[in-house]
Amino acid sequence: MDKILRINMGANGGPEAKTESLGDYAGMGGRGLTSAIISKEVPPSCHPLGEDNKLVIAPGLLSGSAAAMSGRISVGCKSPLTGGIKEANAGGQPSQMLGRLGYAAIVLEGKPAEDSLYKVFINNDGVQIQTDNSLRMLGNYDLVDKMKAEYGEKIACISIGQAGEMKLAGASVAFTDMELRPTRHAGRGGVGAVMGAKGVKVIVVDDAGCKMRSPADAEKFKTANKEFVAGLRKHEISGEGLPAFGTNVMTNIINEAGAYPTKNFQLGRFDGCEMISGETQAELENARGGEGSATHGCHRGCVIRCSGTFYDKDGNYVTKQPEYETVWSHGGNCGINDLDAIAQIDRLDDDYGLDTIEMGATVAVAMEAGIAEFGDAEAAINLVKEVGKGSPLGRVLGSGAEVTGKVLGVERVPVVKGQAMPAYDPRGIQGIGVTYATSTMGADHTAGYAVASNVAGVGGKTDPLSPEGQAELSKNLQIATAAIDATGMCLFIAFPLLDQPETFQAMVDLINAFSGSNMTADDVTELGKSILKSEREFNAAAGFTNRDDRLPDYFKKEKLPPHDITFQVSDQELDQVHSY
Amino acid sequence: MDKILRINMGANGGPEAKTESLGDYAGMGGRGLTSAIISKEVPPSCHPLGEDNKLVIAPGLLSGSAAAMSGRISVGCKSPLTGGIKEANAGGQPSQMLGRLGYAAIVLEGKPAEDSLYKVFINNDGVQIQTDNSLRMLGNYDLVDKMKAEYGEKIACISIGQAGEMKLAGASVAFTDMELRPTRHAGRGGVGAVMGAKGVKVIVVDDAGCKMRSPADAEKFKTANKEFVAGLRKHEISGEGLPAFGTNVMTNIINEAGAYPTKNFQLGRFDGCEMISGETQAELENARGGEGSATHGCHRGCVIRCSGTFYDKDGNYVTKQPEYETVWSHGGNCGINDLDAIAQIDRLDDDYGLDTIEMGATVAVAMEAGIAEFGDAEAAINLVKEVGKGSPLGRVLGSGAEVTGKVLGVERVPVVKGQAMPAYDPRGIQGIGVTYATSTMGADHTAGYAVASNVAGVGGKTDPLSPEGQAELSKNLQIATAAIDATGMCLFIAFPLLDQPETFQAMVDLINAFSGSNMTADDVTELGKSILKSEREFNAAAGFTNRDDRLPDYFKKEKLPPHDITFQVSDQELDQVHSY
Repeated sequence: MDKILRINMGANGGPEAKTESLGDYAGMGGRGLTSAIISKEVPPSCHPLGEDNKLVIAPGLLSGSAAAMSGRISVGCKSPLTGGIKEANAGGQPSQMLGRLGYAAIVLEGKPAEDSLYKVFINNDGVQIQTDNSLRMLGNYDLVDKMKAEYGEKIACISIGQAGEMKLAGASVAFTDMELRPTRHAGRGGVGAVMGAKGVKVIVVDDAGCKMRSPADAEKFKTANKEFVAGLRKHEISGEGLPAFGTNVMTNIINEAGAYPTKNFQLGRFDGCEMISGETQAELENARGGEGSATHGCHRGCVIRCSGTFYDKDGNYVTKQPEYETVWSHGGNCGINDLDAIAQIDRLDDDYGLDTIEMGATVAVAMEAGIAEFGDAEAAINLVKEVGKGSPLGRVLGSGAEVTGKVLGVERVPVVKGQAMPAYDPRGIQGIGVTYATSTMGADHTAGYAVASNVAGVGGKTDPLSPEGQAELSKNLQIATAAIDATGMCLFIAFPLLDQPETFQAMVDLINAFSGSNMTADDVTELGKSILKSEREFNAAAGFTNRDDRLPDYFKKEKLPPHDITFQVSDQELDQVHSY
Repeated sequence: MDKILRINMGANGGPEAKTESLGDYAGMGGRGLTSAIISKEVPPSCHPLGEDNKLVIAPGLLSGSAAAMSGRISVGCKSPLTGGIKEANAGGQPSQMLGRLGYAAIVLEGKPAEDSLYKVFINNDGVQIQTDNSLRMLGNYDLVDKMKAEYGEKIACISIGQAGEMKLAGASVAFTDMELRPTRHAGRGGVGAVMGAKGVKVIVVDDAGCKMRSPADAEKFKTANKEFVAGLRKHEISGEGLPAFGTNVMTNIINEAGAYPTKNFQLGRFDGCEMISGETQAELENARGGEGSATHGCHRGCVIRCSGTFYDKDGNYVTKQPEYETVWSHGGNCGINDLDAIAQIDRLDDDYGLDTIEMGATVAVAMEAGIAEFGDAEAAINLVKEVGKGSPLGRVLGSGAEVTGKVLGVERVPVVKGQAMPAYDPRGIQGIGVTYATSTMGADHTAGYAVASNVAGVGGKTDPLSPEGQAELSKNLQIATAAIDATGMCLFIAFPLLDQPETFQAMVDLINAFSGSNMTADDVTELGKSILKSEREFNAAAGFTNRDDRLPDYFKKEKLPPHDITFQVSDQELDQVHSY
């Protein structure tokens, strides 16, 4: 994994691929690599859909190896949604396969002169780029079927649906899962729109003939991996809660905490939670699809297996198990308590290639504007279908919550840096509010999951309703997360890492054994800091100031029931988060 | 003119009016007053449509007096379009009438608890505020007819059309002219959306029983006014060009200069210019409406009279004479060469209450996206009609060029700080590019009309195609303009002021004679600087940095024919503009 594949879509005479060595980027992976390339090569003032932006797709440092949990992949660019730097990541199979093919990153550059659509095929023999306008406006599911028919069943796909082709700021990049379905999405920030602007519909990856990446010290690697896996299995969240109920285990927990954003962040509890909780969902999946339907990894090598499969009442596949944030965004946030409707929307989002968090938040804003009633599941489904049609209303919604709020004249729009807040009200869980406000990514729970400490007590308990200690907590989590995002490991390893020092050490040993390095815990922290620093510099050069590190005013003015509390962390504390 | 009328729309028990003395704001008027109130009273981080924003409507310092040209009125708020401070100004009758009623400003505050629409009636007896939902979604023309029927013919109206009610960021505030038609608009920055968010549909003003405001020194005032008027009449632009052909006299001039933005800023010359020029327009108006149809003031006391009346081929009134910027935005910028179609759109814009510059720029962006063909006048009319209908597409367009570009995935969007550029390509007239980039208002030609020097040689000639001297030029013009905007005088006095020192002195004398002050030319400069400074501070607190003082990248990369030139003024020079 020592080479970069650069595809210049704007080359005279058509797209041109070339492979080069990592050079200055040696030793980087995942978010570390995407943010380094964007920071160094993309002018911060450029238009996100223009020729100067780049789309970087990078497996993690350990992707393609036998390390557990190492199959995440990062997608970076200047974001059409936030106007700042973006890294969105996903599971699925492409990460491991690209790792085995030796690619540390694919970089899509330039802009095609003609309005053609391209497909890229990568295997052990090299890279082929072909015009294929027959793919135009295909959903991800049909697209992948077409690729299977063309290239066989042993491939993996990286693709965009209609939303990416329309260059909508809510568009995702889809990655196929173990069943070769386009269910794993780098969702946030409109990365799919940048892929669409590059004219690339799909990248097909085939690693036939490639070997697993081998560690520098095989024996140490094996030992560390064993210890690491044991640690993951031992922890109650990664070993019990997530495998049994998936991420949706959070619905009851966050609702109980009074921080479940309901009806466009008007309330902190949803009276329909029981009907859409992880417990209810797992039961339904197991009943419809057979025991084990609610336990499934998003990529090979996953030992947490927080995913699953959602079937309809006749036992037909609908979509992968909708995540907590999806169930929330299209569920409680829209006042909807119907798991089948939510699953149907999840499928539509995946097919059109849309960020489920942004879309649910956007539908709720549209509901607040009176476009539909809160709780009307059929109306919500139809609104998402508008995006697929590319109607004017659909394009508005597909552009995300901020644009929708502007177009519909809504004041209560829960965004930071233009990106919609996920499934945790920052008034009910003040720590996550700090992350929303100060993350380089816009409102993003995965950038520093303070919920773990505020609600679950992981890594020590902090009071979710008090501003105290939240800035420090979020800072440390943001640093740790940036480092984890560079490894290609799933963020859920953070739960045992924070609670079990020996599991943290096992992860460090794993990296060292693989790469022959001598990293310490401090080095991991330094890696995280340096990634955040480069991202902050990009954003500053793009015009961001500490005024962008704020929640919308209404979170400081409107009290959230049931705790009747506003966001309490001071601006001064927010400004301290990135002083390291 | 020593009192402020504050209307708290959010008061318990319904809207509440109170009158207070000017206090700290004594001696301020027009933009000086609107920007002072916004800077002091509006939190820069607030949502433009929320309760904390205020809409300030302020006549100029000399409004309501016998001073020539003193009938302009300023509207200020935090802009829904730019997110920064905004002053948009207009002609019409309300300024003089409010001046005579003694109001230095009307301030709309708070937010109504209920979704009701209000009308405000102001006369010598005081202020009445009434709910009137029968006005809902009326266009400005029907609305004014209704007010005439209710309050008689001697009123003036300040109102919003459908666009303002929908809180669209392209919405204007309309002011009635001498014929009691809603043709004079504070167009830019979405001030109408803020009025809509306050729930105020119309403010009816009746100055019956009020006297002209009298000067401190009547004799000196009379002399100065005479000298001032003589100066205006003597100058070839204010005395000849503007009265004969209106502002549209610029079409041939700017086209000849190769700086006429054509087809969404793709070209610098439009081959249909002859058909929509001021000369053609004046000829048509005189032929259809009788000699003199093309010579008309926008308010009583105007001696330049750059306006006129546009009739259809049967001699029926269509709209006031469309301004140069309107003829450009809906004409050449959309590839349209049909004056009747342009006049029809001008009428629609006035009726719906839309900024003609923003709307034309937006239609051109939509045309670039393929929604309609450049040059298709009927399609353009229908697109603007969508706004009146409030369809999803209409709401997008009514939200302005930037949002439309996002929704339709267009890269070439000519905006600064979210506001569309007016009728001068900054590559062909580099001086105006400096103003677009660095104005506190977003891209705004009236904020520092460098075209005067670059093209017409007013105040000394600078080469329009060279970056040299442009920053200094724009700086001085921005300072002078801020001061003029505080007086309530029409900006067109700037042409003789810049060329004729005695006319400048006459204006200073006029102000001094009126207010009994002892202002010098230096004081005028200081006034301008202090206004700009407070606006810059507001914008900085709202999150603006020097990265916001830039043109979109493509102006630095794409060459504009026929001169094949990019925007050349360096970032360093742009950053010097406001160092005073």
